[in-house]
Amino acid sequence: MIITSRDNPNVKRIAKLTKRSEAKKEGLIYLEGTRLCEEALSSGQKTEEVIVTEDKISWAKEFTPGTEPLVLSKDVFSKISQTVNPQGVAIVIEEPGLASDIPAKDDGKDIYAVLENIQDPGNLGTIIRMADAFGLTAVIISPSTCDPFNDKVIRATMGSVWHIPVVRKTMDECFDFFARSKTETLAMHLKGTELGTGELKLPCAFFIGNEGDGLTEETSSRCSKLVKIPMKGKAESLNAAVAASVIGYELSKLL
Amino acid sequence: MIITSRDNPNVKRIAKLTKRSEAKKEGLIYLEGTRLCEEALSSGQKTEEVIVTEDKISWAKEFTPGTEPLVLSKDVFSKISQTVNPQGVAIVIEEPGLASDIPAKDDGKDIYAVLENIQDPGNLGTIIRMADAFGLTAVIISPSTCDPFNDKVIRATMGSVWHIPVVRKTMDECFDFFARSKTETLAMHLKGTELGTGELKLPCAFFIGNEGDGLTEETSSRCSKLVKIPMKGKAESLNAAVAASVIGYELSKLL
Repeated sequence: MIITSRDNPNVKRIAKLTKRSEAKKEGLIYLEGTRLCEEALSSGQKTEEVIVTEDKISWAKEFTPGTEPLVLSKDVFSKISQTVNPQGVAIVIEEPGLASDIPAKDDGKDIYAVLENIQDPGNLGTIIRMADAFGLTAVIISPSTCDPFNDKVIRATMGSVWHIPVVRKTMDECFDFFARSKTETLAMHLKGTELGTGELKLPCAFFIGNEGDGLTEETSSRCSKLVKIPMKGKAESLNAAVAASVIGYELSKLL
Repeated sequence: MIITSRDNPNVKRIAKLTKRSEAKKEGLIYLEGTRLCEEALSSGQKTEEVIVTEDKISWAKEFTPGTEPLVLSKDVFSKISQTVNPQGVAIVIEEPGLASDIPAKDDGKDIYAVLENIQDPGNLGTIIRMADAFGLTAVIISPSTCDPFNDKVIRATMGSVWHIPVVRKTMDECFDFFARSKTETLAMHLKGTELGTGELKLPCAFFIGNEGDGLTEETSSRCSKLVKIPMKGKAESLNAAVAASVIGYELSKLL
């Protein structure tokens, strides 16, 4: 049966869940578009609801064989859609929850990106993607860092948000863990000494601060070293995701 | 005199110029907010118009002493403003024009980022900022790459768009110049060989392709080498600005 009314209770419910704040309250994520949906499905996320237009029923059969899809008319789908050119494919999945413990490898070759108050979803997503590409153990985000299941973050991760552990921890919890695991802690700081790659060793956690303000004084002072990426040009600083990527890349050479 | 009407011809003209497509036709750029305006002014961009609210007249006196500002009521300013919380400060400057020739240093230690069809303004801005930080000679953009004077690009460059040469050239013009200047040409390509830093030499141009499609076959095949950034993790690719930053950083070690 194709739903043709915006007033259908199922449609009303999905429309509500397209708002991130509403979905979050229920521990759910609304995803739209074939790429985003297929990335989540192929990584085994639990599907709560599948929403397609009539011409995408075959997509639902292929990618979500166990779930009866909600079939909407193109008109109704476009009304709830969050995109300019709706592809007629959306899913609601359970929020996987942020890994509760900071993971560690058996061989001690751990690299952690610790993000304190990163606010730009594109930066957070790009860092999660980079961390997955360079083989980092986890991305740790402070309580004030933006929601990793925000639509823009998920898009920017290109699927990596489903693959690499993302852990939300206070700075206290981080420093406790790193002290116990004898993990070196590097504050990325414009007043730091220039990164000499010979000095790097694992396990290592590097701390990246807010886009405008950098790391807090407190966090910087608790790290074992303040380092900066050598910049031979004129600009005084780098985008947060770029800084994270360069140090992440250098550390990945030790894996 | 404080302008209190949206129908004032000067206000109408500024409102029109807030649309990038309209400003571009006249070779102008509309910038808003203290940071963005001050970055452009301190780099010596030619000011066509200064627009402030009454409480920001002192700002205009300090930063644009030679130009009589257009003073608007807060209400009128907020109507033309492109931001959620207007700061009451805007300028219209002349578009500096893209450097017409590809520049080169006397010592031959040139690094060029060549961008083929980069579409995301955040990526383009982040690459321009990185290039300025790492001391690259220029950023070269293909005819299809997005407008570097787009508001989002300018914001992401954090002022670097006014400092490092950005040159728009066809791929033919690039390869002609690089052949003449004996510049190595590296295609950043997922099928390339892993970047061995020992192999890098200057002058060098690295080519980065479109976010979704990568470099065109034609451009890749014209480069002297296809290289990829070693990724020891699971994600198969990197964000375009991250890939550009890692190779830019490695090359900057040779400066």
